[in-house]
Amino acid sequence: MAKKVPIAVVRRLPRYFRYISELYRQNIMKVSSKELSEKMQVTASQIRQDFNHFGGFGQQGYGYNVPTLNNEMSQILGVNENFSAIIVGIGNLGHAIANNVNFTKRGVRILGLFDSDPEKIGKPCGVHVIADVASLPEFCKKSRPDVAILTLPKNAAKDMFDRLKELGVRGFWNFSNTEIRSEDGVAVENVHIGDSLMLLTYRLREMSDDSEN
Amino acid sequence: MAKKVPIAVVRRLPRYFRYISELYRQNIMKVSSKELSEKMQVTASQIRQDFNHFGGFGQQGYGYNVPTLNNEMSQILGVNENFSAIIVGIGNLGHAIANNVNFTKRGVRILGLFDSDPEKIGKPCGVHVIADVASLPEFCKKSRPDVAILTLPKNAAKDMFDRLKELGVRGFWNFSNTEIRSEDGVAVENVHIGDSLMLLTYRLREMSDDSEN
Repeated sequence: MAKKVPIAVVRRLPRYFRYISELYRQNIMKVSSKELSEKMQVTASQIRQDFNHFGGFGQQGYGYNVPTLNNEMSQILGVNENFSAIIVGIGNLGHAIANNVNFTKRGVRILGLFDSDPEKIGKPCGVHVIADVASLPEFCKKSRPDVAILTLPKNAAKDMFDRLKELGVRGFWNFSNTEIRSEDGVAVENVHIGDSLMLLTYRLREMSDDSEN
Repeated sequence: MAKKVPIAVVRRLPRYFRYISELYRQNIMKVSSKELSEKMQVTASQIRQDFNHFGGFGQQGYGYNVPTLNNEMSQILGVNENFSAIIVGIGNLGHAIANNVNFTKRGVRILGLFDSDPEKIGKPCGVHVIADVASLPEFCKKSRPDVAILTLPKNAAKDMFDRLKELGVRGFWNFSNTEIRSEDGVAVENVHIGDSLMLLTYRLREMSDDSEN
């Protein structure tokens, strides 16, 4: 396998992949780092440096080959691995994640949705029917989901994490506004949607400072 | 005002702020870069370097003063500015954002929610009643929202952005799965929730590679 890639580079990769897979869908075969740079508002030299970590993805002078790029990025990002997932906590956010995230495009299959609220259990959500969290031990034993998407309240998240870890879940996509640490053999991505709102207010404040000067 | 801070540092600031504001709520007065480092799994030297961009936030040897840190970070992030916002597009995602993001904590007031669907207009959502997007020109003229949160379908987002920009909105928090560019005097934060799922599948793939070697 490829050598360890710096985390900062990895974090830029999904964004590159979004652009490249869009070009690929449009049947565009070649793209130069200059074009990518303009589209993505990242310097061409940054793009070349980043791509070098992944073997360069093609010949610079001629531009990058889009199908190759798309294929290699898919592989690196695990999009071809066909990971399976469950969503736990089907409030507004669980609903939104279940229905707004293009899981198929990212190679993830949703196996089931779970909640503890008797009002919700048995109700449909998209193509699924919400199941009882009490059925998770049996479900995990049988279906072995790779990933659990945690969209439950903050105070319930860590407990559910511990339970699901015991049941063999290895990946957690955590939206519950609490930071859960990755452990040996268990990967956690903590999503804090509100963080980017603060980046926006930062920029707004900066803009008004600039206009006052 | 402070000098321009590198964007990579700014992007780490909301996460620092989450930790610091939590300590502040717990009435903890002092924290060392070593403690922060352990809590946040960032090196102490990274923390010191980052904090130096914002004036250092206090004396190293004695640890950082939490209330000062909390106050200065609030100021930098614009949390004290009391920005106002509207949410446009009240599907699952709009509902989830309206009800799951702690806007108050981030100094943002939600003034109103808007949708174009006659089925939704007039219905309650949290403490608000969903209004007609057709009323936006009048609303913006009167209430002058600083920020629009775009949770509408991809194909409607750019159009709404153009309309709201004309109506004087300066900040956009864009969840519509399309990249909108910032312009002179207009700041856009594009949120791609799915990106972090790819970071998770990346790590899962890497973990299974490691265990195979």
